[in-house]
Amino acid sequence: MLIAPPEVRLPSRDAVEKAVRELDRRLGPSKVDVSEAGRLAHARDDSAAAGRLPDAVVLAAGRDDVKVALEVCETHGVPVTPRAAGTGRTGGAVPVAGGVVLATQGMADVVDVDRHDLVAVVQPGVVTGALHAAVEAEGLFYPPDPNSLSSCMIGGNVAENAGGPRAFKYGVTREYVLGLEACLMGGRVLRTGRRTIKGVTGYDVTSLLVGSEGTLGVFTEITLRLVRAPTEIATVLALYADARAAAAAVTRVIARGLVPRCLELLDAWTLEAIRRQGISVDPRAGAMLLVEVDGGADAPLDATLEALGETLSEGGQAIDVVAAQDEAQRARLWEARRMLSMATRKLTKYKLSEDVVVPRSRLVELLDEAARVCERERVRHLTYGHAGDGNMHVNFLWDDDGERPAVDRAIDGLMRATVRLGGTLSGEHGIGVSKAAYLPLEQGPELIALQEDLKRVFDPSGLLNPGKIFPTGHRAC
Amino acid sequence: MLIAPPEVRLPSRDAVEKAVRELDRRLGPSKVDVSEAGRLAHARDDSAAAGRLPDAVVLAAGRDDVKVALEVCETHGVPVTPRAAGTGRTGGAVPVAGGVVLATQGMADVVDVDRHDLVAVVQPGVVTGALHAAVEAEGLFYPPDPNSLSSCMIGGNVAENAGGPRAFKYGVTREYVLGLEACLMGGRVLRTGRRTIKGVTGYDVTSLLVGSEGTLGVFTEITLRLVRAPTEIATVLALYADARAAAAAVTRVIARGLVPRCLELLDAWTLEAIRRQGISVDPRAGAMLLVEVDGGADAPLDATLEALGETLSEGGQAIDVVAAQDEAQRARLWEARRMLSMATRKLTKYKLSEDVVVPRSRLVELLDEAARVCERERVRHLTYGHAGDGNMHVNFLWDDDGERPAVDRAIDGLMRATVRLGGTLSGEHGIGVSKAAYLPLEQGPELIALQEDLKRVFDPSGLLNPGKIFPTGHRAC
Repeated sequence: MLIAPPEVRLPSRDAVEKAVRELDRRLGPSKVDVSEAGRLAHARDDSAAAGRLPDAVVLAAGRDDVKVALEVCETHGVPVTPRAAGTGRTGGAVPVAGGVVLATQGMADVVDVDRHDLVAVVQPGVVTGALHAAVEAEGLFYPPDPNSLSSCMIGGNVAENAGGPRAFKYGVTREYVLGLEACLMGGRVLRTGRRTIKGVTGYDVTSLLVGSEGTLGVFTEITLRLVRAPTEIATVLALYADARAAAAAVTRVIARGLVPRCLELLDAWTLEAIRRQGISVDPRAGAMLLVEVDGGADAPLDATLEALGETLSEGGQAIDVVAAQDEAQRARLWEARRMLSMATRKLTKYKLSEDVVVPRSRLVELLDEAARVCERERVRHLTYGHAGDGNMHVNFLWDDDGERPAVDRAIDGLMRATVRLGGTLSGEHGIGVSKAAYLPLEQGPELIALQEDLKRVFDPSGLLNPGKIFPTGHRAC
Repeated sequence: MLIAPPEVRLPSRDAVEKAVRELDRRLGPSKVDVSEAGRLAHARDDSAAAGRLPDAVVLAAGRDDVKVALEVCETHGVPVTPRAAGTGRTGGAVPVAGGVVLATQGMADVVDVDRHDLVAVVQPGVVTGALHAAVEAEGLFYPPDPNSLSSCMIGGNVAENAGGPRAFKYGVTREYVLGLEACLMGGRVLRTGRRTIKGVTGYDVTSLLVGSEGTLGVFTEITLRLVRAPTEIATVLALYADARAAAAAVTRVIARGLVPRCLELLDAWTLEAIRRQGISVDPRAGAMLLVEVDGGADAPLDATLEALGETLSEGGQAIDVVAAQDEAQRARLWEARRMLSMATRKLTKYKLSEDVVVPRSRLVELLDEAARVCERERVRHLTYGHAGDGNMHVNFLWDDDGERPAVDRAIDGLMRATVRLGGTLSGEHGIGVSKAAYLPLEQGPELIALQEDLKRVFDPSGLLNPGKIFPTGHRAC
């Protein structure tokens, strides 16, 4: 059950052939894959967005390859879809106009990790988990931790402004990008930002590029801010009868001024999915909070943990509050959380995950609204996610193709409810193909028009990652 | 000794008269000040940038006034310079092309402070210190604390992306702006961003507007992220023989993973300025660190303070390390720091303060370079600032008009050294008029051209705050 590609301008056969010939000549045939297997392997990402089969895949090995690809494709009028690991959840890396997929997974060098300046310089194809390992070996820490961190790549993380559970304390990818080298359509190379922690020289073009979903430029080098690695970490699990009681505990934690690094909520249906994986969860529990605190050697966690325990238990609604006793137990708790996306897939033939955000005080209302629209449309769902940020993953589940229209109505209902509650359509997945039709629900026509004008500054011919973010060409909501 | 205004297009007499007549008619004469006193009062800011006398001052009382002013001035081709408190240090609010100054100090409502969502909504004319007081009354905290906080306004803080000592732990203004309402030249009203903590819907137009120095739009409402107020604060003073020893202590603090909220360094000449104010400082001291840590009731500071004391004393180079014993003593320590800008003015007839930033590991080299260029040009200087961020205020002092060319050469030398050390021209003051000529030292022609294109998207006729940021029209460096 894929989301149909939007109506976009497709390149002519002749243009594609000329471009591929020139790419072949300038990059060498080993970097230009026109095999069916290669093209198929680069036609999808980890979302329900259907692409069109790309005509060729460029396997870039460095900045100059990216530059050449963007120059050649501009010359011949061939669309380009940049791609890192292809783990995106909204179709950002899906080639909806065919043309060339520009794959950067071969650019995987950690160029520099500086212990003194707390800075890392990396290429876009570095796997996020590998970056974590590289900097942690130096006693440093790169906080953003999208769920797919063992396979996703930093280039994609920057393009989508990825988050993760640790965002509650540490913020999202944008907070860590100090500078970028980006190639623009046509082959211009732009260097933005800086290596220093502060800087207000000129407009913040770096922040504009972060989260631009591959529509403004292709990153070839990324300068990241690091922090010192926390040396103390503790994880606490709290069980409640229902999500309302768990959400109330989230509110109490925030009100007390505690800042856990993670504050994750799992609802009743999610716990059921976990149980079906063979993990034992107290049968009375209808919601779980997974809370993690961290600190340095010079800021012991004892007082914080005590306060956290008190706050989670307050009001007598907690069924159980337990702290992980050792690293193995901690890892097991997180394993269950990280496996959720996979586990829910096993419950059902089809799954669509939304990642709406509401102001934190509206969390219970969001959960109620999700239940209401799903009940109305008779669609199964389960919800879990970053409760501390008001950012929940609402998963719609179905088995029969005929249910799809009801699922679409439920998603539409969820999006409208989110905006009504003062929220936003996406907290970390981006808009891509999947949510483009909903953009006008949240943003006014002036803002959408202005963003399209900004896009034209970077890509006047509209050939870089067409069909993404903006509603034009997408089915109206 | 003012910096001459850049070569910019000036409006015709006729255009100005028509615009003023229409403004008068549509806003009422009480909001359009053409008196010489009113115009003079809005011709300068807190920098050495000379403006041209504006033809009129619009005293906006709300969004609609801003909208009308931008519409009328666009129609008649009259330049507009937005202004909040006029406390800027690089001429951002100085009307270098005459025309209309659009003053927003009358828009001073704190519209909303939400304890549950940790959000404040304010108008641009709210004084930053008043915002602090308003949110702290609710147990909340807005961290950015520019030195001028008792007079500067949040609209200007957002326009310049202001920092302050607490940025070391908490970051700068941009980290706290969730959403903006901005009027564009011509009168379009744009609403960007969100009220939620996370969000990746569309391009980050909010971050592009923050720090755009009044050249892209005029803010009429600002949505700010707040945090819980820390309940424990402790201040430590450490004295060293010289800045090199103090900078080494800064490096040790960072290496140990301590995150004080402030980590300020004052050099020998700065201590001398303090002594001349009648404040007693150990005569052996040639440098001072002012360090402040904070935490919540559930994260006591004892262990942190102990570690901090150890780290500051390590290596036996500290002359003295003392913790403030009570709130009064703490306030006295900060009073000396906050008075510095005023105190240095009393030392000399003229003063120019730069706010360069280098990677933290290059701090000693920056101090050496500042001393070297000043010695070469025989210019007096003193340096203090946010050492934890590598962001130092290098103050050039002189008494005689004839020394100005030497000062200019020293500034030029400092800028070049900063960029050579991997640094950036400005950490919190912005580029404005004062540093526009130096922009090409740091940024390539592609990036400058792209930023000028972005400017045209917001302001095609180039009438909003002309002559700022970009080098065109400025004396070449």
